Amino acid sequence: MTDLVPATGPQPGGLDTVDAWWRAANYLAVGQIYLMDNPLLTEPLRPEHVKPRLLGHWGTSPGLNLVYAHLNRVIRERGTTIMHVTGPGHGGPAALAGAWLDGTYTERYPDVPQDTAGMRRLFRQFSFPGGVPSHIAPVVPGSIHEGGELGYSLSHAFGAAFDNPDLVVACVVGDGEAETGPLATSWHGTKFLSPVGDGAVLPILHLNGWKIANPSVLARLPREELDALLTGCGWRPHYVEGDEPDAVHVAMATALDTVLDDIAAIQAGARSGKTVGRPRWPMIVLRTPKGWTGPREVDGLPVEGTWRSHQVPLPAVRENPDHLAQLDSWLRSYRPDELFTADGQPAAAVLANVPRGDARLGAVPHANGGTLLRALPLPDIRDYAVKVPEPGGTMSEPTRALGAWLRDVTAASAARRDFRVFGPDETESNRLGAVYEATAKAWQGPFLDVDTHLAAGGRVMEILSEHTCQGWLEGYLLTGRHGVFSTYEAFTHIVSSMFNQHAKWLHESAKLGWRPPIASLNYLLTSHVWRQDNNGFSHQDPGFVDHVVNKRPEVVRVYLPPDANTLLAVSDHVLRSRGLVNVVVSGKQPSPDWLDPDAAVLHCARGAGIWEFASNDAGTPDVVLACAGDVPTLETLAAADLLRRHLPELRVRVVNVVDLMRLLPHEEHPHGMPDADYDALFGTDVPVIFAYHGYPWLIHRLAYRRANHDQLHVRGYKEFGSTTTPFDMVVLNDMDRYQRVVDVIDRVPSLGRNAAALRQQMLDMRARHHAWIRVHGEDLPEVRDWTWPTGH
Amino acid sequence: MTDLVPATGPQPGGLDTVDAWWRAANYLAVGQIYLMDNPLLTEPLRPEHVKPRLLGHWGTSPGLNLVYAHLNRVIRERGTTIMHVTGPGHGGPAALAGAWLDGTYTERYPDVPQDTAGMRRLFRQFSFPGGVPSHIAPVVPGSIHEGGELGYSLSHAFGAAFDNPDLVVACVVGDGEAETGPLATSWHGTKFLSPVGDGAVLPILHLNGWKIANPSVLARLPREELDALLTGCGWRPHYVEGDEPDAVHVAMATALDTVLDDIAAIQAGARSGKTVGRPRWPMIVLRTPKGWTGPREVDGLPVEGTWRSHQVPLPAVRENPDHLAQLDSWLRSYRPDELFTADGQPAAAVLANVPRGDARLGAVPHANGGTLLRALPLPDIRDYAVKVPEPGGTMSEPTRALGAWLRDVTAASAARRDFRVFGPDETESNRLGAVYEATAKAWQGPFLDVDTHLAAGGRVMEILSEHTCQGWLEGYLLTGRHGVFSTYEAFTHIVSSMFNQHAKWLHESAKLGWRPPIASLNYLLTSHVWRQDNNGFSHQDPGFVDHVVNKRPEVVRVYLPPDANTLLAVSDHVLRSRGLVNVVVSGKQPSPDWLDPDAAVLHCARGAGIWEFASNDAGTPDVVLACAGDVPTLETLAAADLLRRHLPELRVRVVNVVDLMRLLPHEEHPHGMPDADYDALFGTDVPVIFAYHGYPWLIHRLAYRRANHDQLHVRGYKEFGSTTTPFDMVVLNDMDRYQRVVDVIDRVPSLGRNAAALRQQMLDMRARHHAWIRVHGEDLPEVRDWTWPTGH
Repeated sequence: MTDLVPATGPQPGGLDTVDAWWRAANYLAVGQIYLMDNPLLTEPLRPEHVKPRLLGHWGTSPGLNLVYAHLNRVIRERGTTIMHVTGPGHGGPAALAGAWLDGTYTERYPDVPQDTAGMRRLFRQFSFPGGVPSHIAPVVPGSIHEGGELGYSLSHAFGAAFDNPDLVVACVVGDGEAETGPLATSWHGTKFLSPVGDGAVLPILHLNGWKIANPSVLARLPREELDALLTGCGWRPHYVEGDEPDAVHVAMATALDTVLDDIAAIQAGARSGKTVGRPRWPMIVLRTPKGWTGPREVDGLPVEGTWRSHQVPLPAVRENPDHLAQLDSWLRSYRPDELFTADGQPAAAVLANVPRGDARLGAVPHANGGTLLRALPLPDIRDYAVKVPEPGGTMSEPTRALGAWLRDVTAASAARRDFRVFGPDETESNRLGAVYEATAKAWQGPFLDVDTHLAAGGRVMEILSEHTCQGWLEGYLLTGRHGVFSTYEAFTHIVSSMFNQHAKWLHESAKLGWRPPIASLNYLLTSHVWRQDNNGFSHQDPGFVDHVVNKRPEVVRVYLPPDANTLLAVSDHVLRSRGLVNVVVSGKQPSPDWLDPDAAVLHCARGAGIWEFASNDAGTPDVVLACAGDVPTLETLAAADLLRRHLPELRVRVVNVVDLMRLLPHEEHPHGMPDADYDALFGTDVPVIFAYHGYPWLIHRLAYRRANHDQLHVRGYKEFGSTTTPFDMVVLNDMDRYQRVVDVIDRVPSLGRNAAALRQQMLDMRARHHAWIRVHGEDLPEVRDWTWPTGH
Repeated sequence: MTDLVPATGPQPGGLDTVDAWWRAANYLAVGQIYLMDNPLLTEPLRPEHVKPRLLGHWGTSPGLNLVYAHLNRVIRERGTTIMHVTGPGHGGPAALAGAWLDGTYTERYPDVPQDTAGMRRLFRQFSFPGGVPSHIAPVVPGSIHEGGELGYSLSHAFGAAFDNPDLVVACVVGDGEAETGPLATSWHGTKFLSPVGDGAVLPILHLNGWKIANPSVLARLPREELDALLTGCGWRPHYVEGDEPDAVHVAMATALDTVLDDIAAIQAGARSGKTVGRPRWPMIVLRTPKGWTGPREVDGLPVEGTWRSHQVPLPAVRENPDHLAQLDSWLRSYRPDELFTADGQPAAAVLANVPRGDARLGAVPHANGGTLLRALPLPDIRDYAVKVPEPGGTMSEPTRALGAWLRDVTAASAARRDFRVFGPDETESNRLGAVYEATAKAWQGPFLDVDTHLAAGGRVMEILSEHTCQGWLEGYLLTGRHGVFSTYEAFTHIVSSMFNQHAKWLHESAKLGWRPPIASLNYLLTSHVWRQDNNGFSHQDPGFVDHVVNKRPEVVRVYLPPDANTLLAVSDHVLRSRGLVNVVVSGKQPSPDWLDPDAAVLHCARGAGIWEFASNDAGTPDVVLACAGDVPTLETLAAADLLRRHLPELRVRVVNVVDLMRLLPHEEHPHGMPDADYDALFGTDVPVIFAYHGYPWLIHRLAYRRANHDQLHVRGYKEFGSTTTPFDMVVLNDMDRYQRVVDVIDRVPSLGRNAAALRQQMLDMRARHHAWIRVHGEDLPEVRDWTWPTGH
């Protein structure tokens, strides 16, 4: 390894404090996995000092500690603002060790002081009931990334770097994680990161060679293939490889100095205008053994440098005296007496490697985004509302109205640069293209003459990877900014699992007094299930909402605005909200405008309400026609029209639900309605014929405990319909206006002969529809041309 | 482009038939998008010949047609067995054109003959209500891949190639699709494909430059970066680039000959033993304009070669005479009179490029896997069952028992090579490691001394990408083989969207008489929500089942075997099943054995049943304790034990549910129970206290229409619990034995003073538990040591 020591730059002697810090962190990592007592090894290790259940992951820890130790050095010496993202799974022991040595852990948790008792508690709480997990959970100061699921570190890092021109985001990418699809494509963030307006992402690909039980793909690549792969993704890799600590320290310090110089030069060149175009950003490939400095062999089998060090290298320490002795000598190999005072405080040699104040990795404000968050300057939505002289008399494309408002949100935040729009190549398709009047799509070139709306500093983020869009947005939000992710409804399931992790992160973060809430993650789901003009039976799935409502009610909200102005009202609300995941479902096709701006704001604030203009129940309905979602609302209003025309004696109430969580009991969700309110809307003894945008059983679930639930009858999507017309989709799923009239007639008793005739007429209309579209390929004129009559 | 014409090899003149076929396919693609009449342009185009709604995607079609045309040539000339996978979205017009020219479309659909009437029908049905979608749906002969969602083409192609040594799978990868995470990592399939036992995958990366509204990332890479990226993924790219048809034909033909020679040489070397190790497989990069040969400009804006040709380049043909004229000349530019006879049959010059019989891309049997499928030789599960002298008296790790059986399934199918096990680095962790006695993990090297269970010909497929595992398995199944995908429960959501697409594919395929069913896709979800020893509040989510049951009931099944022998019985069943997605949820930790092999088989065949050994109701229960899942079953039995000990007068019935779909009405699901059967199990007038593995509301949904549903009380996972002990997880979610006893006491009327005392005792036990684990870090001895008593 001596050939790694250059004549100039960091020399072995100069890195003693880095090495001391590293040994201390390694000691603390092992201690967390094994010890519940005797933390400083002041007496020989006995079985009762060892935890009864050995949980945790050693394998990744020494490498992560090495990175933390060296980042500390460059922060100290260069004054660079650095935050870190740790991708490998189960990196908890390392991150906790680092934060405890920082002093940031003790600042957040004074009951875990920097002394012997604190060290004992640090060890004991790890992977212990009620303690801290082996992942880098929100409880860890300085973290925005859990690694609970692998693959999102690098997109999180890019999200953190956007619009933070003075920040370097050091991101450790595990070689297991690197095999995931989301990680594999996130290397291409290079095509979107501006060297002028954004900060830098410094990937540190850690090749420790092994996953749980297998070699990792990237670690076994010949060097020239690995180099080609990373070069092909736009990076300039620097290699730090070895298993001899002194040599690796020198190589790592040299590499870090080189890449930070390189980053500074790239940014200076771009910011002075001397260079244009996409830079080749530097990165580090760190190849060190899995479980480095741990037991070399256990029970005659090689452990260090193999998959056997993934979790707990010595599995039977309490029972097996040899294992106990090995643990004792392993811990002592770090020379703890040099690293900690007799009181258990980090020794001066260790503390010398800790940066000061907010520069510490555990304290950097960007990793606690709520502390940096500022409310967005949101224009008054009334200035963007569509005119609604009377309900249903005009048509608009809801997302197009939203686009104009988002344009001006973008413009109003242009100087602050804390708002971005994310989407997989669909912003224009989703009819939000007005934002291009205020900004462009981020793209670092090359550019062609035919290109439109592309610019290096653009703040619309489009890559055909929902994973990357969501990862970027999460990173952006977690560092204190705002955003919207618009995507096709069917494909939101691509990020189901990412949503899980983020929602759980928010839930855990909300328990921590020291993490102020961040801006909510806002989904706009459009191109939805009811408009499948181009698509076969492969695209339809409105079930992301079902997935979302399985999460803790404290952190999830679902909105189904029925028209343009309610979409504006909801969007204004969600961009003001904090600490939530908001799902907004809205069509993009022309559809009736129901509410003027004031009515829309009021209706959305209530979340659900009676639409008086469509009702003739005078307070005592015979039937409630309920609806949630734009297409269900249209069919409901059309059904109400039919009923009022043909059965004028029937008292019909129309209830529209925008905020789906209103249906839950208020004991179960912060937005839930008290029973009295629910009963006042839906009645207690009349049929409720509900048309819902998604799978119908969700409404049953939400309203399960309501008095009237036995009379609740829900229509929704039930997996019918391939390439076909809009109205055929609702017919195939029995949610059309005609079927809804039939549903009413079948459920309201004693309606008489007129009703029977109307029922047959409705069935005839369904048959006429089927025959018509087969010939004409488009919907019946009376359906296409229907509007809510002014006469009612 | 002339420098692309080499002195030897295919020459322009020799490719006339390829060009004729290509022009014919292009003509048919345009016709499908636009025409409803006058298919042969026998009269000047009039507005009424044009469809009223213009849907479909021209942009990708000419490139796909080019590939199909040239694959036809090499199939004809070389006799290679080739199947194709088409990744770009909305490739329907091309694939349908190809299959119609093949003759295979007409063979499958005699109502669409190869004549003028057939061509008219082919055009008219496209993106028309009741017709065919713009994706490559199951209705398209020769397809295994829809492209409804982007990113899975290459993993499907690898899955198809595994164990098909004589097959070449040509896979067109779109440059939009290439940005997705799943596609980005699937290039690494090279590390797993054996040149000896597997076939070849030939990727054709089609850089047409644009997505819906953006340049594609890969198309804008400098050549050296693109070359590095693909080289780094293990490929040897050959470039075919141009916009002049004759030159591109020559280049494409030359490249195809080269890569097929190269593939043959690689395979010959490996199969003769002359070469070892991972080959560098050849691939093609095809760079042609988006919308090639379409309108160059429309309304003054460039269209060909830009994103504006993505869908319908001429949007207003019915209304705008200029557009109509442009369409007319565009169609005539292909010289249809040379391509089709006056009767609308493909002309001889076109047919000359069509291979014969099963060699046609639309007819290759591998793309209709059900025709090749053979039942697996499954050993008798009784030979692998654990001994159960009495219920609950012994403990087993269920997945370990399964592993032994899977080992022998693997061994029994070794010569046939039609069964593989897939998993993201978790086969050993999931305790299925016995399979390594029969086969190894596929790995093409390099190998290290410490490696275990790795071999080039291994049939366990492990890569840390759930997307790739699922994609490989889908490709393997769709080409007529069998497999199991074992994965951690929480992370199954990573493939939620892939499941959607596959389930919908199965549903559509089942309607086609010519597609016999393929083997079911079998998930084994383990390391489940109730065992979070290592994990924080980031991993738990048992909601994949909720997602699955949203799909059509015809194609989904969910099993929750409560112990080792029931897991074996269920596994045997699912490997025999066809055309389904089966989800099996089972723990891997030691847990009680409840049923002996015969009882297990009977219980699983019934899907749900009364456990007499645990019940004392004598046919008239006061309460039903129901359970589904291994941990819920354990807690239920422990609760039954407590009740029978302390309230012996209470008549308790224990019902276990293995097949979750049994709870649905039989009108709604093929496995649903008739009401009479349900009532006989669960009663009609007694409380049913149900413990379910997942989110509790799913049980309410399934049993919603049952008579007794108002008395159904469900406990399950409700998003509580981080790093903690097994029993603490059930306590935190109120599913523990003590709470279940309390639930019973609270719901069965008139139980008297003993019950009140027992209730308090139970609450005290919960408090004792909380105190105990905080100190000891493990569960109460009376919980850990509890077993079902022989006394009852």
